[in-house]
Amino acid sequence: MKRGFASDNNAGVHPAILAAMVRANSGHTRGYGDDDYTREAEGAVKAHFGESCHPFFVFNGTGGNVIGLQTLLRSYEAVICSENSHIHVDECGAPERFTGCKLLTVPTPDGKLTPELVERHMHGFGDVHHVQPKVISITQATEVGTVYTVPEIRALADYAHGHGCYLYMDGARFANAAASLGASLREISVDAGIDVLTFGGTKNGLMFGEALLVFHEELAKSAPYLRKQAMQLASKMRFLSTQFTAILENDLWLQSARHANGMAKLLGDQVRQIPGVTVTQDVQANAVFAVLPAEAIETLQSEFSFYTWEATRNEVRWVCSFDTTEDDVAEFVAAIRRALAS
Amino acid sequence: MKRGFASDNNAGVHPAILAAMVRANSGHTRGYGDDDYTREAEGAVKAHFGESCHPFFVFNGTGGNVIGLQTLLRSYEAVICSENSHIHVDECGAPERFTGCKLLTVPTPDGKLTPELVERHMHGFGDVHHVQPKVISITQATEVGTVYTVPEIRALADYAHGHGCYLYMDGARFANAAASLGASLREISVDAGIDVLTFGGTKNGLMFGEALLVFHEELAKSAPYLRKQAMQLASKMRFLSTQFTAILENDLWLQSARHANGMAKLLGDQVRQIPGVTVTQDVQANAVFAVLPAEAIETLQSEFSFYTWEATRNEVRWVCSFDTTEDDVAEFVAAIRRALAS
Amino acid sequence: MKRGFASDNNAGVHPAILAAMVRANSGHTRGYGDDDYTREAEGAVKAHFGESCHPFFVFNGTGGNVIGLQTLLRSYEAVICSENSHIHVDECGAPERFTGCKLLTVPTPDGKLTPELVERHMHGFGDVHHVQPKVISITQATEVGTVYTVPEIRALADYAHGHGCYLYMDGARFANAAASLGASLREISVDAGIDVLTFGGTKNGLMFGEALLVFHEELAKSAPYLRKQAMQLASKMRFLSTQFTAILENDLWLQSARHANGMAKLLGDQVRQIPGVTVTQDVQANAVFAVLPAEAIETLQSEFSFYTWEATRNEVRWVCSFDTTEDDVAEFVAAIRRALAS
Amino acid sequence: MKRGFASDNNAGVHPAILAAMVRANSGHTRGYGDDDYTREAEGAVKAHFGESCHPFFVFNGTGGNVIGLQTLLRSYEAVICSENSHIHVDECGAPERFTGCKLLTVPTPDGKLTPELVERHMHGFGDVHHVQPKVISITQATEVGTVYTVPEIRALADYAHGHGCYLYMDGARFANAAASLGASLREISVDAGIDVLTFGGTKNGLMFGEALLVFHEELAKSAPYLRKQAMQLASKMRFLSTQFTAILENDLWLQSARHANGMAKLLGDQVRQIPGVTVTQDVQANAVFAVLPAEAIETLQSEFSFYTWEATRNEVRWVCSFDTTEDDVAEFVAAIRRALAS
Repeated sequence: MKRGFASDNNAGVHPAILAAMVRANSGHTRGYGDDDYTREAEGAVKAHFGESCHPFFVFNGTGGNVIGLQTLLRSYEAVICSENSHIHVDECGAPERFTGCKLLTVPTPDGKLTPELVERHMHGFGDVHHVQPKVISITQATEVGTVYTVPEIRALADYAHGHGCYLYMDGARFANAAASLGASLREISVDAGIDVLTFGGTKNGLMFGEALLVFHEELAKSAPYLRKQAMQLASKMRFLSTQFTAILENDLWLQSARHANGMAKLLGDQVRQIPGVTVTQDVQANAVFAVLPAEAIETLQSEFSFYTWEATRNEVRWVCSFDTTEDDVAEFVAAIRRALAS
Repeated sequence: MKRGFASDNNAGVHPAILAAMVRANSGHTRGYGDDDYTREAEGAVKAHFGESCHPFFVFNGTGGNVIGLQTLLRSYEAVICSENSHIHVDECGAPERFTGCKLLTVPTPDGKLTPELVERHMHGFGDVHHVQPKVISITQATEVGTVYTVPEIRALADYAHGHGCYLYMDGARFANAAASLGASLREISVDAGIDVLTFGGTKNGLMFGEALLVFHEELAKSAPYLRKQAMQLASKMRFLSTQFTAILENDLWLQSARHANGMAKLLGDQVRQIPGVTVTQDVQANAVFAVLPAEAIETLQSEFSFYTWEATRNEVRWVCSFDTTEDDVAEFVAAIRRALAS
Repeated sequence: MKRGFASDNNAGVHPAILAAMVRANSGHTRGYGDDDYTREAEGAVKAHFGESCHPFFVFNGTGGNVIGLQTLLRSYEAVICSENSHIHVDECGAPERFTGCKLLTVPTPDGKLTPELVERHMHGFGDVHHVQPKVISITQATEVGTVYTVPEIRALADYAHGHGCYLYMDGARFANAAASLGASLREISVDAGIDVLTFGGTKNGLMFGEALLVFHEELAKSAPYLRKQAMQLASKMRFLSTQFTAILENDLWLQSARHANGMAKLLGDQVRQIPGVTVTQDVQANAVFAVLPAEAIETLQSEFSFYTWEATRNEVRWVCSFDTTEDDVAEFVAAIRRALAS
Repeated sequence: MKRGFASDNNAGVHPAILAAMVRANSGHTRGYGDDDYTREAEGAVKAHFGESCHPFFVFNGTGGNVIGLQTLLRSYEAVICSENSHIHVDECGAPERFTGCKLLTVPTPDGKLTPELVERHMHGFGDVHHVQPKVISITQATEVGTVYTVPEIRALADYAHGHGCYLYMDGARFANAAASLGASLREISVDAGIDVLTFGGTKNGLMFGEALLVFHEELAKSAPYLRKQAMQLASKMRFLSTQFTAILENDLWLQSARHANGMAKLLGDQVRQIPGVTVTQDVQANAVFAVLPAEAIETLQSEFSFYTWEATRNEVRWVCSFDTTEDDVAEFVAAIRRALAS
């Protein structure tokens, strides 16, 4: 299939990662993570995120989110998140189903929560009729391709902690955010006050896999059991964990994310110049959100794969991957021009 | 690490499967199973199991079991299973946690349920204080390496259906069972009356992945949502599904299973001749269960990887894989002889 | 304690109901509802709601809502409800916790859903990433004291059923609604298209107890088990069920509801004439919502018991009960006048 | 209905308790337990159980058990209980459904767990595949009418605490046990090492209601939310709580329990002398278990209400209540003699 702009999970596996997986296919190892490949990967994670981090490799993002939230919550507590957050919109209710908790949502202009936006749900403490706010959950980069800055994260962390709450980060595109900010992985997570993070791998070029990182020893104690119980413990773990070694060594994560971001920037810059196209969000990570006429969308989708984000206002989402090329962008931009012209 | 006898999941990936995965890493595809690799794999599954089968590829066995059971159960219903069944003993309570249901257990001499053994839990129908028996769950091959024959499965299916219940099969080592019986995959599942099956891949040489097969159209309707909600839907699905194509084409599943079974047979035959070793279960699939002196176990475990199955009676489990060699067996048997002699 | 206006559950038990309970305390009966008192009560319910109704007496409103919703839902389905609905705001997350389902909320001006308001959540059908809309839940009378008319209910029922969904009604103050509309109990429930109803007793003068009514035989089959599993099955059931006989015979339910509504009407009419008080919702049932100065609220609450509904806009709620008297209203109105004057 | 021997919940309400409920029906009070009746009842509970106890009144025994266990457990932990325990057999799976946890069962000769019997499940600590044993749950008096002595409770408490576990007590017939032992309520609960207790009221003559007692301040913090979320928070709480005041004042609990025990003792002593009747358990509380011919059971059940306990061995259960009279016993014994004679 032609490379499109539907999602960074439509891309395959980065060759260097696949090579690492092939290399790991050598002889026997103990299962479930008690192997040298996994220990090496855990070491690589700690080298980036610091010794206070407790890494747990899981199959996918929904799994990471559910387990991560579960380490922080009892069933009568609640999660505050953006109205368009992945945990609310795209996980078929898995968070409620498996934590038992309510998600309290907030509309946002740009996908980003702020203490001011969160405030409306920070009440009812001590009232048994109300769920008890306990976790603020943010997505980095956000579902609309924007990126929280370090001060923005810090402000939310301070606000959460000041209210006896935790700050959780769904980092499905965490690498893209770090690349965008020019920051290290730990600067925008544990150092900024994040309590639990899912560090996404799949959208960064892995075949599958996310790393759930718990930054508190006490909270981390439940994670191994929750991971198993949540059906997220791989038996042949080495093939999952070695992928993280591959992206963390030599900063492959950064190269891939920077490249994808760059392609999105290029695409955004070029489509902004096309009459009839309105870019609706700052292009800070690897996605471009734009409004264009319905007919043009239809024409384009017959040739390129991408999603309509919000049908009611003809808004589409174009996502770039580690393997998107300048030629891909140029070809796509030309097609957009043609679609708009006709 | 040296090839041991701890588990068939300590082996890596069969080269032919890995090759298929590498081949699938070509260009973009749609995510979550809407791709040609997955359609091909679904076709391969149906070619083996018949058109009435609805296949859903999932990450792992616990995931397959939980979703499979969930398609059949409401929260006040119950599962009857063997006391040493994987769903009861080895899944950290995931079935109860995610179906809400109680597991009613039965001791068995050889890991196999029979209508007579199940009978003790088949009561309380219509009594709201009691959970309502709804699913009989069997494991094929069983946790102790024995294999249900077709008439045995049929008897349980008829018994279950006669009581308004379903027959579920945890087929983590389903290929080994089919190879053992010399039967086709459908003869020992849908044709024998199984309602829902998890057809295991990981222990048959896959990197990861099981195929949940629902043999009723109506019951299958919930499975796509349950799979997503249970965090078992892979975004880059092609790398999961193409593995099933690889094992189902050219009967790779059969070669691998037959080989592993054969190695276990060889091992069982040889250790039976060693004084001080008692083989405790018929070797019908790819595992040997044996009792030997505690000191010999300790000596052997310092050199070979394997698990103590039941410490109180010095019973161990030795599992063979697709990659176990006759030399591995010979070397191990020699070591057992040495350990017993000393 | 002085009779206040905090809630209709601050009142005690209507003397006729208490008398019935005392009468029921005679000799032994079988437990859990297998007794003549309960059969009599079930008959009384069917006499009012029709033979298609399957009644299940439960301890409280949250219990009724949770079980009622559970009869209609699988865990990946969703409930659409008003943003201020009791199931969303006042049940400590019990619906999510016990159904596993997501609640999708809608802001409303007057507490009432309409097909137009519900529309925004009626999408994603067939998309496994999205929860599947399945139940529209409305409260009658609403949490802000308004009442759905029969055509309004019918419109929602038709809309729900047209989308393969159900219409659930939380009838904590169902009697007040019927009294307000001058309609029979069945006209505004089963005859208007309601699929499952919780017919509230506690706020109508019972000591405790609600009647969950399922209007479909097939759906009703799970209710007895769900009731037991949800810890809502009373062992000495006669003391619960006989209360329903008491209110359904001689239309005690109607007298009590009509009286409470009348007192609220009186209160609303009188406070509307007080400068500085704005009544914010139509007084259609037994509650008055009003905005008045913060200082006046504080003064009044030192003497009378009532709740601030929405602190940010100084809105309060005043609820009348079966035992509120004209003198109570007059005394309270006089106090409001004094508080406003000072 | 004639007073039978089916269950102590077939009896009605003790007149003194009903009188207290009638007295409480005076004027308005705040809802949900924020009232003087409830504070008085909490004081009465503390007077008996000590200041370390945190009481939470709930509707019924299943509710008390579920919430009590939930205060102690995370979803991957397990409860060890007797094979015939109420939480395992008679609650329609509510414990699994609402705690998410597995129940590990043990056969017992007399309904009583011992450290030796529990031992078989005390393994797998730290193994993520296994549920983690966390609570030992015992019933006092047991389901077969026997009573744990103080040293027996203490031994289990020490054993549990020594393994990092808790000791939970389902005290549905706790009053009967205390009466049997001639001990105070606290001597056989908190002073013997119990961590959480459900102190049963319904079977001791209440209309409805149990008191969940948490003996650790930290653990008690979740209970108010869990009670609400588990649908066990009564709005007109005074009518529940005042019943506990009634039984705790003037030791009504003890009189009722002692009387019921005495009637069971009388019944047991007399039926032991009837040829063809075998009493199968020590009569230590208010129940008699006996084996007698199937035809005799049938004859008797046509006249008296009681349950067959274990049909396969013709074992029946006869329970006495606070209102069982010597005449009731004499009449029943005479009927048994007649049934055996024919």
